[in-house]
Amino acid sequence: MSKNLRKVCVVVASRANYARIKHLMKAIQNSEHLELQLVVGASAMLYKFGRVYDVIRQDGFEPDYQIHYLVEGENLATQAKSTGLGIIELSTAFDSLKPDVVVTVADRFETMATAIAASYLNIPLAHVQGGEISGNIDDSVRHAITKLSHLHYPATEQSAERVRRMGEESWRVHWSGCPSIDILINTDLRLPEKEYFETRGTGRIFEPSEPYILVLQHPVTTSFGHGAQQISETMYGLKDIPLMKVVLWPNSDAGSDDLAKSIREFQNTYHDLPFSYHINFKPEIFAALLANAKCLVGNSSSFIREGSYLGTPAVIVGDRQAGREHGQNVVFANYDRKDIQQKVIAQVEHGHYPVDHLFGDGTAGERIARHLETIDLNIMKRCTY
Amino acid sequence: MSKNLRKVCVVVASRANYARIKHLMKAIQNSEHLELQLVVGASAMLYKFGRVYDVIRQDGFEPDYQIHYLVEGENLATQAKSTGLGIIELSTAFDSLKPDVVVTVADRFETMATAIAASYLNIPLAHVQGGEISGNIDDSVRHAITKLSHLHYPATEQSAERVRRMGEESWRVHWSGCPSIDILINTDLRLPEKEYFETRGTGRIFEPSEPYILVLQHPVTTSFGHGAQQISETMYGLKDIPLMKVVLWPNSDAGSDDLAKSIREFQNTYHDLPFSYHINFKPEIFAALLANAKCLVGNSSSFIREGSYLGTPAVIVGDRQAGREHGQNVVFANYDRKDIQQKVIAQVEHGHYPVDHLFGDGTAGERIARHLETIDLNIMKRCTY
Amino acid sequence: MSKNLRKVCVVVASRANYARIKHLMKAIQNSEHLELQLVVGASAMLYKFGRVYDVIRQDGFEPDYQIHYLVEGENLATQAKSTGLGIIELSTAFDSLKPDVVVTVADRFETMATAIAASYLNIPLAHVQGGEISGNIDDSVRHAITKLSHLHYPATEQSAERVRRMGEESWRVHWSGCPSIDILINTDLRLPEKEYFETRGTGRIFEPSEPYILVLQHPVTTSFGHGAQQISETMYGLKDIPLMKVVLWPNSDAGSDDLAKSIREFQNTYHDLPFSYHINFKPEIFAALLANAKCLVGNSSSFIREGSYLGTPAVIVGDRQAGREHGQNVVFANYDRKDIQQKVIAQVEHGHYPVDHLFGDGTAGERIARHLETIDLNIMKRCTY
Amino acid sequence: MSKNLRKVCVVVASRANYARIKHLMKAIQNSEHLELQLVVGASAMLYKFGRVYDVIRQDGFEPDYQIHYLVEGENLATQAKSTGLGIIELSTAFDSLKPDVVVTVADRFETMATAIAASYLNIPLAHVQGGEISGNIDDSVRHAITKLSHLHYPATEQSAERVRRMGEESWRVHWSGCPSIDILINTDLRLPEKEYFETRGTGRIFEPSEPYILVLQHPVTTSFGHGAQQISETMYGLKDIPLMKVVLWPNSDAGSDDLAKSIREFQNTYHDLPFSYHINFKPEIFAALLANAKCLVGNSSSFIREGSYLGTPAVIVGDRQAGREHGQNVVFANYDRKDIQQKVIAQVEHGHYPVDHLFGDGTAGERIARHLETIDLNIMKRCTY
Repeated sequence: MSKNLRKVCVVVASRANYARIKHLMKAIQNSEHLELQLVVGASAMLYKFGRVYDVIRQDGFEPDYQIHYLVEGENLATQAKSTGLGIIELSTAFDSLKPDVVVTVADRFETMATAIAASYLNIPLAHVQGGEISGNIDDSVRHAITKLSHLHYPATEQSAERVRRMGEESWRVHWSGCPSIDILINTDLRLPEKEYFETRGTGRIFEPSEPYILVLQHPVTTSFGHGAQQISETMYGLKDIPLMKVVLWPNSDAGSDDLAKSIREFQNTYHDLPFSYHINFKPEIFAALLANAKCLVGNSSSFIREGSYLGTPAVIVGDRQAGREHGQNVVFANYDRKDIQQKVIAQVEHGHYPVDHLFGDGTAGERIARHLETIDLNIMKRCTY
Repeated sequence: MSKNLRKVCVVVASRANYARIKHLMKAIQNSEHLELQLVVGASAMLYKFGRVYDVIRQDGFEPDYQIHYLVEGENLATQAKSTGLGIIELSTAFDSLKPDVVVTVADRFETMATAIAASYLNIPLAHVQGGEISGNIDDSVRHAITKLSHLHYPATEQSAERVRRMGEESWRVHWSGCPSIDILINTDLRLPEKEYFETRGTGRIFEPSEPYILVLQHPVTTSFGHGAQQISETMYGLKDIPLMKVVLWPNSDAGSDDLAKSIREFQNTYHDLPFSYHINFKPEIFAALLANAKCLVGNSSSFIREGSYLGTPAVIVGDRQAGREHGQNVVFANYDRKDIQQKVIAQVEHGHYPVDHLFGDGTAGERIARHLETIDLNIMKRCTY
Repeated sequence: MSKNLRKVCVVVASRANYARIKHLMKAIQNSEHLELQLVVGASAMLYKFGRVYDVIRQDGFEPDYQIHYLVEGENLATQAKSTGLGIIELSTAFDSLKPDVVVTVADRFETMATAIAASYLNIPLAHVQGGEISGNIDDSVRHAITKLSHLHYPATEQSAERVRRMGEESWRVHWSGCPSIDILINTDLRLPEKEYFETRGTGRIFEPSEPYILVLQHPVTTSFGHGAQQISETMYGLKDIPLMKVVLWPNSDAGSDDLAKSIREFQNTYHDLPFSYHINFKPEIFAALLANAKCLVGNSSSFIREGSYLGTPAVIVGDRQAGREHGQNVVFANYDRKDIQQKVIAQVEHGHYPVDHLFGDGTAGERIARHLETIDLNIMKRCTY
Repeated sequence: MSKNLRKVCVVVASRANYARIKHLMKAIQNSEHLELQLVVGASAMLYKFGRVYDVIRQDGFEPDYQIHYLVEGENLATQAKSTGLGIIELSTAFDSLKPDVVVTVADRFETMATAIAASYLNIPLAHVQGGEISGNIDDSVRHAITKLSHLHYPATEQSAERVRRMGEESWRVHWSGCPSIDILINTDLRLPEKEYFETRGTGRIFEPSEPYILVLQHPVTTSFGHGAQQISETMYGLKDIPLMKVVLWPNSDAGSDDLAKSIREFQNTYHDLPFSYHINFKPEIFAALLANAKCLVGNSSSFIREGSYLGTPAVIVGDRQAGREHGQNVVFANYDRKDIQQKVIAQVEHGHYPVDHLFGDGTAGERIARHLETIDLNIMKRCTY
């Protein structure tokens, strides 16, 4: 392999992470000027979150490093500790791989660990999905990562403007659209045959020909301790709606144990109702589920990003995404079963919305890879004011 | 102790840290509305950096936690690892102390560790000395800490404005001046008697009645690997100036081993010249040394902050402080022995400058403590654009 | 509290840990010469393992430190990493608590972390359950802990002799019997009423008046990767035996994810059969379950220890306990469903065995506490050959 | 490289480590059946301990992993923390390198970290220098490592017997002699020319043609806090002996800061006396210094091992090596300047002793490599009683 290739190191730390960055990884791999370095760690290594590591290898990527740094507990202290252990492990990996640039996505603690390890090793950092506002603690972390980053690939024009207003030099900010839209463009969005679902999940078997609601609600870290109640309102809000509900388990944030327990109790109590529970799906299947749902319910940011492009009606519950830029497909509901029920019914009746390019046109990965081929990787940032 | 007191946790991680925050600590201790919690760690625990821990106790403070998290190596990777280990240790301390607010100063990796641990534990973070521009990698870290912080106590009005422009709500930004000026107000700035210096340091004994130049040059993390050459230019630039040179060893940044070795070689080679080498001084003695020097040479930010108030002529070498706001007392020199020599001679000839309140009036600690007594500690930040 | 009390620090790291050490903790608390210091960590903090931390507090103990150090993954590398993180966290706790002696039980990685942290801090270490042979990798760890320990409280005379033969001075070895027998003496061994079980577990509701088999099979770390197959043989060996099977989920060793998945598959496939699945029970309930079972099946060491005293017939599957000293109540079976089935049937037919004092008489906690009150805590060990 | 080669991973963690294992590394490299994997870390990475990493590369070895895990402080708590961080880093390295066997030497905390990481990853562990008795805390750690190890290469027959008596199977114990003797056989033991020393060290320039005493005294971890006094007795015991004293700085154990400070004070006070101070020497130069000294003073185990083979008179100070097997060349002294002075004078007068093969004949590396080529690497140990 030529010595002249720029080494671009991508850190994949969760299933959501991978879904968003996969097409960028392909674009790097296909570039004649870039070489992909791949570090896989955190919940992407765990069987209980669907072992994304194996999916990655099946997709034709070969990880250079596999690392473990999630400290069990899924409370606030262990989230901090996971960040700390992540920095320790990632700094060894970066010190050995010596990438020319590290790419990181979004705003979770794994992203922060990547940003800090790269920063202190003087490695240029490229940040995807910066500049967004969601109205919770993730905002602080996301904007802090922006200040540590040398290149910014925001998902919307509004986010790009916000990054620049924070004092980032204009030439470092390059609108790419959101890489999560890339999946939609490159995927057959039809649901797989029923055989696919017959051996998956617990609860009622999901029959892909029937109309369904997709449910995904993550814990909100700033209201730690209320997660069980919050998800409970959603479940009871959906209980009497006579469509199939496809429910995904929440990701590994602080507080997810709590939510999981609450969902499990609902599952035990109402095992006769049409709810189908799943740990996770491959990105392509998840995209198809997003595309074909009658309504999306919960607080997954995919309901806003991908949902906007797909036009799938969504009810966003609570304040995790409260300030987030969104398309027409979204309405908001309180943590209140009645409010949720009414809005879901209204959205199902409305049906799909038109396509919206707010979060990009499906070429984010390509745009970022092209930009990384030639852009100046100077780490000396100048504040613009 | 009343349950109603707000618990303010201060993390002291180095001698520079302590010098700056000491009067704030006193103001908290004296407040009827605040309770001081104290965590001492990192280089503040180490004998080779003067064991600040002992100084702190002699000053009447009782640490609640003493922790170790510096990973040896003092290179880029170990700076990252120290951050990681710091987060792990600090999150246990904060989880147990449960402070109402954590106070952190400046922009070093220990500050970042404090900011991240507090953030993920949902503890409000107050940041002192935010919003400054120094033109090196510390800027990224400093601004990232600003985005993680809930209260800002900048040292200058310009810095306060910069913090607001980054999107921080106005009510969270409160000009206090720099706490390092507080020391100057509260200290007898006369040098101690010669007995004090007779048993201290290596090289020539420093005689406080003689005119002297104070030298302190830290490694610059973004030009890692050139530190030995950089300090060498300074030492040779001073070699032929016939005043006593009081030289302090650099702090424990990545690259300090390198500088220390270079200084040691100079010391061995020119052991007959008037150079006196010291590990460190108590903050009060250091303040007196700053006040009475004929010239300050190197890149210590104290030459700019305290120097501005004291009016002591300073030659700032290299680009570590290049973009930093400064008073009249400062001129800049390149890493070039001739340039350094000429500018030092000119500054010595010029003599002291008038007092400048650019970095405050010596009441920063009081101002911050008063503000912390009543200010809203809400952690839900709103970006102002 | 008097300054003359010896501070005895106990580290509780799992539910099994707590069950065994609870009466020692009480004996320390009740001693006029000892003061209990309590550190709770690792899986004892986790909800998914029954949050033993809460049980401990309900039992009237107040933890001095609560720490998190389990690295997720439950594979071989994360077991090592958990040990490492445990040492980091425990050394801060011990450095602050400054105990006169630390007590640790058995042979898991949490025990090793405790032993190493105490050793390097020059704190005398008392080890309970040393000197045993079980025929797997735990032996190496257990004997290594013996060599790091200063006081030994083995469960059997044979184990005591083995500790002495390893070169430990005789006066440091004191037979106490196994603290797990203490629970049996101090507990009402009748099962609780059926209401207790009606809201617990998944699968068939356990009705305490019916005859049942108790199943608990942990992963065997040296045959990592075969755990799913091994537990599967046990489940199928029990499938056609027409008694209720009360199944406990395995503990958090490397490989437990694997076993848990295998059990869950069995549960889904045979949801109509009389199997009742439980995360864990309080030590007292678990003791009652041990006492009243028709047969104990799996590889829990409690089947050998407590089982010996209670006389409950047991079928030990596989080689995890292969070399372990045991009473009459035990027969061994291969990882073979036929072999398991036949031996379980034979044991059920045989019925209970007479009481055996091989593992002690229920006063281990008292014996250890008495001994700790006065024994020399000298850390300078002499090898006896 | 053939797939059939056994991968032997060596961890080098300090300069003493490397000196001892270098010839084994060469023998592995030259074997047709073995492949060398090399991990370099801890103080072997640090400039202040002579950056052994660079020496290793100059000697023709290419490290596979370079890692940092020393936590600064050099007190008891940081020694524990370094062990913990070492386990975390080494488990990632071993998990990636997947060696067939890991080789570790002696008894320091780095050795313990290696032993634990390998153990939990189910990698066979070969331990060199097990079974020895030195009469301090290192004994506990050394014997604990023996119990974690699967193959034992003791330095003396007495040590081999001790390992077997601890319950290790005979076939796992193979006398090799001490690898530190290998250096002596393979090295030109004449001192280099005076030019070599003219640019090295501080204090008086060492002139290799003059008679000299070699001084090396490490901190004793169990008498932490007394190190300064202990080294001080040695320095004052040597003060008036009119030979050149070549003094080496102590290694990075807990307490070395203390000793270093004490030596530095002595150096400052008696800068006119014939003392030459050195950070460290390459193994070959150190061997020559051992061979040609009039007397060896301090507590370095090399004075006993290599000293025995070389016959160089030695005065071992204090109890760090009190119980250690030794040859005729050794006498012991208390921490008492008079006692030390008298015994050094007597030893200098006595002159060299005859060669003794107690610690081997210089073929340990070869013997170990040959044995590793074919020996059973079964990790299932059986205690022999």
